Amino acid sequence: MEGKLKMLDNAMQYSHQLLTEIVQPGDVVIDATMGNGHDTLFLSELVQSTGRVFSFDVQKAALEQTRALFEHQHQTLINVELIHASHDQIDHYVTEPITGAIFNLGYLPGGDKSIITHPTSTISAVQQSLNQLKIGGRIILVCYYGHPGGQEELQQLLSFVAELDQHHYSCLRYEFINQINNPPILLCIERKK
Amino acid sequence: MEGKLKMLDNAMQYSHQLLTEIVQPGDVVIDATMGNGHDTLFLSELVQSTGRVFSFDVQKAALEQTRALFEHQHQTLINVELIHASHDQIDHYVTEPITGAIFNLGYLPGGDKSIITHPTSTISAVQQSLNQLKIGGRIILVCYYGHPGGQEELQQLLSFVAELDQHHYSCLRYEFINQINNPPILLCIERKK
Repeated sequence: MEGKLKMLDNAMQYSHQLLTEIVQPGDVVIDATMGNGHDTLFLSELVQSTGRVFSFDVQKAALEQTRALFEHQHQTLINVELIHASHDQIDHYVTEPITGAIFNLGYLPGGDKSIITHPTSTISAVQQSLNQLKIGGRIILVCYYGHPGGQEELQQLLSFVAELDQHHYSCLRYEFINQINNPPILLCIERKK
Repeated sequence: MEGKLKMLDNAMQYSHQLLTEIVQPGDVVIDATMGNGHDTLFLSELVQSTGRVFSFDVQKAALEQTRALFEHQHQTLINVELIHASHDQIDHYVTEPITGAIFNLGYLPGGDKSIITHPTSTISAVQQSLNQLKIGGRIILVCYYGHPGGQEELQQLLSFVAELDQHHYSCLRYEFINQINNPPILLCIERKK
């Protein structure tokens, strides 16, 4: 088997794969949950200097961590807007068509589990992202749900996504089903031609 | 977006992607549900002349259709065993370690919907395939369930797969959740290192 051994992608790896397939230099994209900035950095590299990344977080510390991450990686923030606001304010900041958006929902892994996303603002933010989504674009939701309130947020999100019109959107669920520690579930909404 | 537009794989396309990633020339693989022979042909091309495909069907017509398909595609059956038996006889025919197996469960799309797979023999066949599965190998189940008995088979399979030990297997569920016509659900069992 050597030479071709490829293991199944976990939800985080697959989220990057799904974005890599469609995001091009010059595109506009959203990181709806900046956190430690890793997805912002990943998106910044995909869209390159001619593109733009709008990155949101309600925690001021996230902006500082993200600036530090870019500095540490010798990357400039020239194509990135770090926005200290909730992602349910997306439509106040992003008016261009977007190719992709990524949400990490629940708590920040390794962070304060008392600071979590909430279903009402999350669904509003997803809807605002959909309003700007180009044909062929994708919105990725990586859902952590093993915390208090996590199951409720997950169920409300699943209902919202499952009700999107199949003529306009393909909605994928990607999940490992034999693991005891509630690994994150990935949802991908793709806008159809 | 032109130039990079890639749509999400449906279950059938993704099943082939997952096999392409790990099957190499010279490998031994199983098509547990020969049907019209398309997966057998696909596997035969992956393992090439030094490999081997064991392909099962209870319907004699499937063997004839598969022979006709190979002939039509100018492919030889030199590396293929067409076996007129149920897939719950896998352990009578396959004694080598396998890299992959594929099951299309439910009815044959476009075929006779009264001829369906059944949970007891399906789960036995999956277990027999697991017994032969190499490290890094994958068993793919593409589950059609929109027919009488389909939901029951799906639920039993999901229970079986979800209970596989996470230390030995990763079990992925890949599913479109906003479509009204019960598109197939893909399950992938990967044997871990």
